[in-house]
Amino acid sequence: MIIVIQCTDQVGLVASITAVLARAQLNIVSMGEHVDEANNRFFMRLEITHTGDGDFIAPKLRDVLPSDADIHINPLPNKQVVVLVTKEHHCLADILVRNFYGTLGAKVNAVIGNYAILGDICHRFEIPFYHIAHENISKQEFEEHILALIQKHTPDYIVLAKFMRILSSDFVSRFPMRVINIHHSFLPAFIGANPYKQAYERGVKLIGATAHFVSNELDEGPIIAQQIIPVNHSFSAGDMMKAGREIETAVLANALKLVFEDRVFVYANKTVVFD
Amino acid sequence: MIIVIQCTDQVGLVASITAVLARAQLNIVSMGEHVDEANNRFFMRLEITHTGDGDFIAPKLRDVLPSDADIHINPLPNKQVVVLVTKEHHCLADILVRNFYGTLGAKVNAVIGNYAILGDICHRFEIPFYHIAHENISKQEFEEHILALIQKHTPDYIVLAKFMRILSSDFVSRFPMRVINIHHSFLPAFIGANPYKQAYERGVKLIGATAHFVSNELDEGPIIAQQIIPVNHSFSAGDMMKAGREIETAVLANALKLVFEDRVFVYANKTVVFD
Amino acid sequence: MIIVIQCTDQVGLVASITAVLARAQLNIVSMGEHVDEANNRFFMRLEITHTGDGDFIAPKLRDVLPSDADIHINPLPNKQVVVLVTKEHHCLADILVRNFYGTLGAKVNAVIGNYAILGDICHRFEIPFYHIAHENISKQEFEEHILALIQKHTPDYIVLAKFMRILSSDFVSRFPMRVINIHHSFLPAFIGANPYKQAYERGVKLIGATAHFVSNELDEGPIIAQQIIPVNHSFSAGDMMKAGREIETAVLANALKLVFEDRVFVYANKTVVFD
Amino acid sequence: MIIVIQCTDQVGLVASITAVLARAQLNIVSMGEHVDEANNRFFMRLEITHTGDGDFIAPKLRDVLPSDADIHINPLPNKQVVVLVTKEHHCLADILVRNFYGTLGAKVNAVIGNYAILGDICHRFEIPFYHIAHENISKQEFEEHILALIQKHTPDYIVLAKFMRILSSDFVSRFPMRVINIHHSFLPAFIGANPYKQAYERGVKLIGATAHFVSNELDEGPIIAQQIIPVNHSFSAGDMMKAGREIETAVLANALKLVFEDRVFVYANKTVVFD
Repeated sequence: MIIVIQCTDQVGLVASITAVLARAQLNIVSMGEHVDEANNRFFMRLEITHTGDGDFIAPKLRDVLPSDADIHINPLPNKQVVVLVTKEHHCLADILVRNFYGTLGAKVNAVIGNYAILGDICHRFEIPFYHIAHENISKQEFEEHILALIQKHTPDYIVLAKFMRILSSDFVSRFPMRVINIHHSFLPAFIGANPYKQAYERGVKLIGATAHFVSNELDEGPIIAQQIIPVNHSFSAGDMMKAGREIETAVLANALKLVFEDRVFVYANKTVVFD
Repeated sequence: MIIVIQCTDQVGLVASITAVLARAQLNIVSMGEHVDEANNRFFMRLEITHTGDGDFIAPKLRDVLPSDADIHINPLPNKQVVVLVTKEHHCLADILVRNFYGTLGAKVNAVIGNYAILGDICHRFEIPFYHIAHENISKQEFEEHILALIQKHTPDYIVLAKFMRILSSDFVSRFPMRVINIHHSFLPAFIGANPYKQAYERGVKLIGATAHFVSNELDEGPIIAQQIIPVNHSFSAGDMMKAGREIETAVLANALKLVFEDRVFVYANKTVVFD
Repeated sequence: MIIVIQCTDQVGLVASITAVLARAQLNIVSMGEHVDEANNRFFMRLEITHTGDGDFIAPKLRDVLPSDADIHINPLPNKQVVVLVTKEHHCLADILVRNFYGTLGAKVNAVIGNYAILGDICHRFEIPFYHIAHENISKQEFEEHILALIQKHTPDYIVLAKFMRILSSDFVSRFPMRVINIHHSFLPAFIGANPYKQAYERGVKLIGATAHFVSNELDEGPIIAQQIIPVNHSFSAGDMMKAGREIETAVLANALKLVFEDRVFVYANKTVVFD
Repeated sequence: MIIVIQCTDQVGLVASITAVLARAQLNIVSMGEHVDEANNRFFMRLEITHTGDGDFIAPKLRDVLPSDADIHINPLPNKQVVVLVTKEHHCLADILVRNFYGTLGAKVNAVIGNYAILGDICHRFEIPFYHIAHENISKQEFEEHILALIQKHTPDYIVLAKFMRILSSDFVSRFPMRVINIHHSFLPAFIGANPYKQAYERGVKLIGATAHFVSNELDEGPIIAQQIIPVNHSFSAGDMMKAGREIETAVLANALKLVFEDRVFVYANKTVVFD
């Protein structure tokens, strides 16, 4: 059983929470705890050996916590996702393989692409693929088509696995902290398009990737995971892009694991990640 | 205030400990907690905002903990070390600089070398240096000389900063988990002498270093920190040694920081490190 | 066009080789050159802008090189592989995805498993899968079955993608430097079975993986690529295994890229890798 | 003997250069070669076993190279540096230790600080230290004082080892590609002041440092070396700064090694680094 708690900080919170668990004879296997002192905010993630729904513990915890406490027992136990893609296959293929072998930590309900090309691999893994072309329709219509499909497939999270269209604030605000993007750069450097060309022209010695929640501002949502690899002068912009794809795949996979294991908390546009 | 606790695990330990702190109106700034389930062992490190000696809390904690509990409040608050060296300067110089600027987390009381060469830099930083040659005397005599100096300088920890003599079991057993060594390799690979030559001949693509407590068996004590750097075919054995020195310096510095901040626990020949 | 050359070293080799290319009006795009001084051995890899078979250049190079020179122009231009697996899917799935999208650098002709379980994903990508059970037959019979399939599919390389049977010297010696293995450890540490259990019990702070050519001695062939990830006390042996799978997948993919791009030379049980 | 060459690219350059060396019976120990195709630019670094001044080879090379060729034989064989600092000691102390033990690859002639505090460690290593306060004088006067000291000490390179004043274009343009700075961030992210505060508020998961040549634009000169370390939510801005100091020290040391070994070429605001 996983318990996640976020609330205003106050003295004795850990004592109160763990006392509730001790009285219920629940054994703590692992505990992550963090206080953001600047924001007076308390975060806790507990793994308990109890199997079963554990709902009985929620009101007992609520009794001892501040009134603003956000408590979840086994949050979203069978997580479902819809993946949005464009043309590049590397992140999607990795997600589909993990989904196929049950190691993703969530179930892929559908894939939506603004090009048709990635339908093939989805079909091979028997995952519904929808081609919604963004051409010849307004952005609003485009997003309405996608929204309709999302409503049909009721995902807990939307994963942008190299989806190269910018979603409107309106769209994003419907799924607060539920849209996860892989950014083809080491944020906050090289925001926007063509980061590998930018990196190449700047002669950087490292390139990276960032997985983050999407908030209203492009590339500015809370960062979940980041990683880099060394490059050098012998890398063309194309070589950097190839190397970048490897790191994008790895970073997105890691971020999804962290989110799907309920290890990621968000507050004040930052994450707390108990890994 | 730092509190470190190690004891047999049982249900409710976190609740009991944190309740004691809450009743004393002590606020937890950070908490590290680990249960080694295979060994049924509980480890906790707490940082508390209380300044002052905090000794009053120890008996209150003892009341709620198993009888085998090992409890320390601000363990060794002004840690002192003696450093043993041979000829290589890189780790020693780094330690002396940190000591000089007060960022080591401990005070270097003396340096003992089996060669005279590192006396110069010690004198520049006004640290006593003793030259105890290992030649023309028995190992037992050599160690007796060192022991006498250690007894004079009463260190909490003995740091082997590229000390290339093997200490006897007898010597080491006087300072259990108080002797820290930097091993010129990524343990457990390439145990023993000339690891860079071994690494070169094997054509490895990574070299590393390991900082560990010294127990009776050579290079087999609990590992505190490890790190690696990539190498390739263009590295001679000498180049690997140079690269190795950089990583040795970094790993030992990191291990000392962890130990001196009371972040390292030892049990069953392994460490628990709350970093 | 790729040219790879290996021979005894002598003064003026680079001049002789590049003069031949200049006279043929061939432009060098990239050049890797290494002299192993201990073994008096010369290695060179050239990328030339010439398209076409380029065979005309080989005799001209042979004229200016020592008689023992090993010269290859576009070695194995359409590389083919057979993959051997047991039960774990992570490396195989990664290889199949790269093969499907044409980014592997070689073509997967067939997969052979000593269990049936990985047949499913092979079929999804339309790659022939053969189940050769190792049970109830002798090792010799088992290897003869595999050999027959290999002879049928004529691979240039055999990839052991978590193939957990030890191949006989006899088998391996038929394919010198043509069998590539991913070892579930950072060689030379933890040779043999159950390395994650060994790593866990030793309390290591890093785990790694090694891709290497298979020679007669188990886990002792020339190393192609190695990589590590940090771990800590909170990792169970199972967690280490999971983390290990990610690094195994990445290291094997990298090693195959290097080999298939003709960047890896072998001499004296070591590799020279021009990356 | 080190030979470095930079010129317009043309077919046969490597052949011409290596033929000159072969005729002179000079044996190439290691060779780095790069063509920047976008800029049609050729770069080469050669290590030759010849000891002695080797000046005789320069005209022979000039005969076979384009007229714009920049050729240096053993460039700046006894490199000398002046170090500029403010208050932070970490990079300076590392440089002084390497200078003291002869492993810096250059000789530190003097240190200039705009605060007096770092004079102590310079005196301990018998390096002249000059305190030039920036207060109560104009920027022009401040730089004139520094210039006068630089002219006195005739360095080949000026190292900004956490020098926190911005130098004027006028000053910098006197020493093109001879001023090396360590930037307290992973460029191009977080340009300007207080990067650790910026990084903390953004919740990054990596922090880094960049060593670069100083050109006229702040933090925009050619990048020599970069490196990162992982951080997480438990790092305060102060903890990030401490971790940042470790990486700054390592990156600057690495960049100086590369520059002092004549491994770094600059063209089109980018570096080519043969490491």
